[in-house]
Amino acid sequence: MAKIMAVNAGSSSLKFQLLEMPSETLVAIGLVERVGKDDAIFTIKYGEGQKYTDVLPLATHKEAVELSLEKLMEFGIISSYDEIKGVGHRVLHGKEKYADSVVITEDVIKDIDSYTELGPLHIPPNLIGIRAFQAILPEVEQVAVFDTAFHQTMPEENFLYSLPYEYYTEYGIRKYGFHGTSHKYVTERASELLGRPLKDLRLISCHLGSGASIAAVAGGESLDTTMGFTPLEGITMGTRSGSLDPALIPFLMEKTGKSAEDVLNVMNKESGIYGLSGLSSDLRDVESAATEGNHRSEMALRIFANRIHGYIGQYAAEMNGVDAIIFTAGVGENSDSIRERVLRGLEFMGVYWDPSLNNGARGEELFINYPHSPVKVIIIPTNEELMIARDTVRVGGLIEQNA
Amino acid sequence: MAKIMAVNAGSSSLKFQLLEMPSETLVAIGLVERVGKDDAIFTIKYGEGQKYTDVLPLATHKEAVELSLEKLMEFGIISSYDEIKGVGHRVLHGKEKYADSVVITEDVIKDIDSYTELGPLHIPPNLIGIRAFQAILPEVEQVAVFDTAFHQTMPEENFLYSLPYEYYTEYGIRKYGFHGTSHKYVTERASELLGRPLKDLRLISCHLGSGASIAAVAGGESLDTTMGFTPLEGITMGTRSGSLDPALIPFLMEKTGKSAEDVLNVMNKESGIYGLSGLSSDLRDVESAATEGNHRSEMALRIFANRIHGYIGQYAAEMNGVDAIIFTAGVGENSDSIRERVLRGLEFMGVYWDPSLNNGARGEELFINYPHSPVKVIIIPTNEELMIARDTVRVGGLIEQNA
Repeated sequence: MAKIMAVNAGSSSLKFQLLEMPSETLVAIGLVERVGKDDAIFTIKYGEGQKYTDVLPLATHKEAVELSLEKLMEFGIISSYDEIKGVGHRVLHGKEKYADSVVITEDVIKDIDSYTELGPLHIPPNLIGIRAFQAILPEVEQVAVFDTAFHQTMPEENFLYSLPYEYYTEYGIRKYGFHGTSHKYVTERASELLGRPLKDLRLISCHLGSGASIAAVAGGESLDTTMGFTPLEGITMGTRSGSLDPALIPFLMEKTGKSAEDVLNVMNKESGIYGLSGLSSDLRDVESAATEGNHRSEMALRIFANRIHGYIGQYAAEMNGVDAIIFTAGVGENSDSIRERVLRGLEFMGVYWDPSLNNGARGEELFINYPHSPVKVIIIPTNEELMIARDTVRVGGLIEQNA
Repeated sequence: MAKIMAVNAGSSSLKFQLLEMPSETLVAIGLVERVGKDDAIFTIKYGEGQKYTDVLPLATHKEAVELSLEKLMEFGIISSYDEIKGVGHRVLHGKEKYADSVVITEDVIKDIDSYTELGPLHIPPNLIGIRAFQAILPEVEQVAVFDTAFHQTMPEENFLYSLPYEYYTEYGIRKYGFHGTSHKYVTERASELLGRPLKDLRLISCHLGSGASIAAVAGGESLDTTMGFTPLEGITMGTRSGSLDPALIPFLMEKTGKSAEDVLNVMNKESGIYGLSGLSSDLRDVESAATEGNHRSEMALRIFANRIHGYIGQYAAEMNGVDAIIFTAGVGENSDSIRERVLRGLEFMGVYWDPSLNNGARGEELFINYPHSPVKVIIIPTNEELMIARDTVRVGGLIEQNA
């Protein structure tokens, strides 16, 4: 038995889960927000619904890690740091070099650092998180789990942009795709739920959160996905525009006097559901407003659902059919009305879903298709932390070590 | 009876067809290239395969129009300018105001001129062509036929980008779509060939030339299309990239030191089939090279076909099925190998095409599906000039006038 920490470090936050492996038991969930402030918020949930929150100054991620570990001891969740056998870190980008998770060495850190230009908002905090755990748990195996790795199976005709080929060879410009850990988890879980081997399945995984992406997964391998060189591309998201005419950037620069970076910033942070509705990036707010007759909110929902609906058709075409469509992440797991909008009108490809199963289904594994439907539709709550823990055990060789 | 000129004016070219209406008989085809040069090339085809070519200095589009009309007289194609009852001009952009063709007035010209920012390469020569014909045939009805008009039926959820809504209301930023005249022609023709009314049909029209776009046409109305705010968006084209991650523009500016305009220029002129293959924007060259084992050429073809294949799935999803898929324009009418790559693997949605019909089919109206295929597949040579002539007669009220 081994306790594994699955870590997700953001610029001013640190999320972690402590899992018992290989039993895959969740032991504790921690969250530190406002790292770097005098009023950082530390929250930990453990045991049978116990919860502890504190507000205190935390200058660095290292202090956040120290506090987290101290509290794990204090609450008797662990009795010694030695119980933690591995730490798995979510890392945004592994480029083409990392098609799988990897034990973190100085060379790996150097590589990740060199990918900063591909994820300037995510990579630096990812590295800060790694450094903080290395400093405090220097003897413990650290593993990097890349958001891009799962998509490295995409064939050239799907990952290349129709740009001068040299842009790919010289600058690494291609579709990388993200949310790989989630798409991998839910498609593996779908195979279990369907009772059919992954290698025989054509799956479409809809990861719909405030960031959102869809993946076509054929035979257990990512064939295509909507996010691209960055997480901006693809479907409409909470604040991100998704795909649009590239000619709009110079046009908007001219019209608004903004720099290219500023226009891109609008596309990342002031667009999507938020920009369309003018109200909120949170789908729940927008759904309420739409119910009350707000036109822009109704339209934002239609656009969001429409793009997903279209990609389901596209990915079915890429695989010449689909065995199951999966909904996951915040919106996918919890919004029956979005699922309904997405699924309506796919009978031509064999999708027959049951409104009485869909309505009210929230956050639980559930088939929502009619029994006779050739294409199954499944809600599967994602569990990226579990995948990180599994990968940490697997690539760290920790099961053998601790068997 | 009335003779109608259908005109397509480019920056240094003038194309026209002279048609007898309403019989829709093609009387002459003219082409002036290198307008503005000392060695402009004038070509005219008429009668039973007669052809005349001359190389001469032509300073302006007006001189090109004068020469064209003189030659029509000289070769006895017309006996007087009075025989020309209308001139229809292809115009790139009609924004939201022009959902149909329109008789050209000074106000219309003012409107078109104000759309220049939406088509800086196309609108000015369109206007020069109009002015030239107005000067020489001042009494003749001139009609503008907009490339965007057919797509004005797209619903809001398909034409809006997921950007701040104000960008639409303030700057007119939305999907307009192009090739409307062609999509309209081939879908109307498909209805005739299928012997079913347009209002009952769900059609996918693939206009594949050096510029290329796909349209979903439901009940005779454009529901969605791949080109967007500009003709850059959508599928891979001869030299255009089509859709890609908008974040690539600032990234490429940083990497290459180019301005946003210059990066956009690369995406418009050095990308697509040309940029991928490194060889040519002409699909025939790239197909030859691929046959000889050139990897980048093979890949360019795969990417081109793949994007089209995907949109067929997407548009089928948007219409909950499709009755017929149409191939038109240079590549669509003539390349059996591209059609094959596009159509392979769509059985899941009822597309069963017959290789023995597809192979070698070039430039003729032909069903290439198996008789039992629920989805029909039709090659239909496009005829934008005929549509322009028809619209010129219709909106100009010329049939009544000349009946």
